[in-house]
Amino acid sequence: MNAQDPSQQPRSQQSSSPQTALAEIGEFGLIAMMRDTLGDPTDDALVSGIADDAAVYRVDDERVHVLTTDTLIEGVHFDRAFMPLEHLGFKALSVNVSDVVAMNATPRYATVSIGIPQNVSVEMVTTIYEGLKQACDAYDMTIVGGDTNAAHGLSLSVSVVGAAAEAAVVYRSGAQVGDKICVTGDIGSSYAGLKVLLRNRKRLQEQEEDFEPNLDPFSYVIRRHLAPPAQLKRTREWADAGARPHALIDISDGLSAEVHHICEASGVGAQLYEPALPIDPETRNTATEFGEDVTVYALFGGEDYELVFTMPEDALDALDPQTYSVVGEVTERDETDEEVMIQRAHGENVPLQPGGFDHFDDTSSPGMP
Amino acid sequence: MNAQDPSQQPRSQQSSSPQTALAEIGEFGLIAMMRDTLGDPTDDALVSGIADDAAVYRVDDERVHVLTTDTLIEGVHFDRAFMPLEHLGFKALSVNVSDVVAMNATPRYATVSIGIPQNVSVEMVTTIYEGLKQACDAYDMTIVGGDTNAAHGLSLSVSVVGAAAEAAVVYRSGAQVGDKICVTGDIGSSYAGLKVLLRNRKRLQEQEEDFEPNLDPFSYVIRRHLAPPAQLKRTREWADAGARPHALIDISDGLSAEVHHICEASGVGAQLYEPALPIDPETRNTATEFGEDVTVYALFGGEDYELVFTMPEDALDALDPQTYSVVGEVTERDETDEEVMIQRAHGENVPLQPGGFDHFDDTSSPGMP
Repeated sequence: MNAQDPSQQPRSQQSSSPQTALAEIGEFGLIAMMRDTLGDPTDDALVSGIADDAAVYRVDDERVHVLTTDTLIEGVHFDRAFMPLEHLGFKALSVNVSDVVAMNATPRYATVSIGIPQNVSVEMVTTIYEGLKQACDAYDMTIVGGDTNAAHGLSLSVSVVGAAAEAAVVYRSGAQVGDKICVTGDIGSSYAGLKVLLRNRKRLQEQEEDFEPNLDPFSYVIRRHLAPPAQLKRTREWADAGARPHALIDISDGLSAEVHHICEASGVGAQLYEPALPIDPETRNTATEFGEDVTVYALFGGEDYELVFTMPEDALDALDPQTYSVVGEVTERDETDEEVMIQRAHGENVPLQPGGFDHFDDTSSPGMP
Repeated sequence: MNAQDPSQQPRSQQSSSPQTALAEIGEFGLIAMMRDTLGDPTDDALVSGIADDAAVYRVDDERVHVLTTDTLIEGVHFDRAFMPLEHLGFKALSVNVSDVVAMNATPRYATVSIGIPQNVSVEMVTTIYEGLKQACDAYDMTIVGGDTNAAHGLSLSVSVVGAAAEAAVVYRSGAQVGDKICVTGDIGSSYAGLKVLLRNRKRLQEQEEDFEPNLDPFSYVIRRHLAPPAQLKRTREWADAGARPHALIDISDGLSAEVHHICEASGVGAQLYEPALPIDPETRNTATEFGEDVTVYALFGGEDYELVFTMPEDALDALDPQTYSVVGEVTERDETDEEVMIQRAHGENVPLQPGGFDHFDDTSSPGMP
């Protein structure tokens, strides 16, 4: 125990040193600081630490486990006014399973640490656990432990352990020049659903008690926001087909941010094509109704929990063409170049910034050069 | 995905059903509800789920991993007014390592999910991580991942994976009639430290700015509260000596609660002896200064993170007698009997209730029959 004697603590512990707001360095600056403070890991069995969607460590000569954690906090990640508690439980597990799937591993065990404020009843907690149970059944995994605490707001902190053959694990660092960049499913729909839910909440607050909104035209995008499934089905299909991507990541922060992550980790660049982005008609209709650019939803919206992967073109033949879209290709990276380019629908090729949402900077918002 | 269509959610999702406050069923009632909702696990490799300090699952024919999670929440588990942030980081890892040690396993990997309110700076987060790093060094383990989020209050949710030979794991369910009940170190000191810190906070709030309290007479009990070490050293010594307890648990909720946990899981009773409780002189002096019964601190105070274990008397010969105290013995359990008895210092033998603190019931407090 090297910590200073706690009985000698100064009354105002940090008042003498300059204080930097988190918004100044952002979430990724914060993670870099944490890695610096913790130093380089020396564990022989650790294959990959704080670098990817999940940590990877060997459990025997051929197999690894992966470990990840993600927290959903009331008022930050969800609003109880429009998030059914069953979906909250489902989503809290899904976002963690998505990180395990993004390593090409199979989820096995989860722990759930739940913070419960006074205005949450036993019945409400039970409903959250029913959603967690649905997710366990959907992903064929088990909740093996947890922690319950009184708290000021509702929160769910989940950790998931997954398993894989070491040779099967896919990192974000494996992209190779010439690979096609592919996306499963469609993107931007979760953000479209959030827009509808936020507008609906505002209208409910402003209207009479008997106001009944018609959400039917938005049922798909709302479901995508409230209860996004992790794409375990896709990685199982790949395994059955003997296919393994070069690089893999899930979309939590938005396609643009995730492609930047792959490029940085792999030391490559990327060329994307706006017309190739897979966008559901309901997402497009929602953006139109809000008078906004649906491409912004697709690139920066986030929380899609689809997979971005890179593969050589000929290897794609093994995959069901109904299950993915080619949105670009991996390019050489010249340090003086922009990392990621996107060819707009009107033909112009422009640099793309990571964008997406930074939790610590409320002024950041989707934007396009 | 079996959840109901989220677009059809009722506006007031739980208003029609009766609502039960968490305080009515308590933390252990809540855990029982969660287990019911999740159902019995069917995973073949899972040795033990929600039943002990940590879950246990096989990674090969001989070895298991254990997994546990615990969260520290500002205003519930700690007060930033007297918890140095370095110690907060150290303690957040220690309380999880303590659960791993309580399975007789070795901690290996941790994830940290941190919730950061606006009034916490980059420098303060760095200090928390310095404490986490100290704990990693002390326990020879690695932080391999995490999650950072804006939040309304400071919180640290930690998960730890440990490793052990399957045959070495010790459960709380293994106590046998005739075993001695033993405790490492001393107990009640963390609660004594908390009492001093709370009094000091109150005095600082009431006094002038230049009030400088003398905490020197309480340095041990304060340190025990702010930065309790997990007892990994003890279990390593046991392994070196070829000793393995029949039952093992760590003291988070207080000795009385933990002995009750062992008795319920093992289907046995217990006879404790008040004069045998290991209490540090500084803890005793603190209780005296507060005009309180130090035995209440020792039995119900909690957060000692010492180990309670049961072993046959002759097996104790292998242990260093400086490292533990015999506080009672395991007895036959008759369903009509009280589970745990304690012989008071004045000679009377009385039933002992679990007591301790229930996070959801502020009216509960240390008490003795």
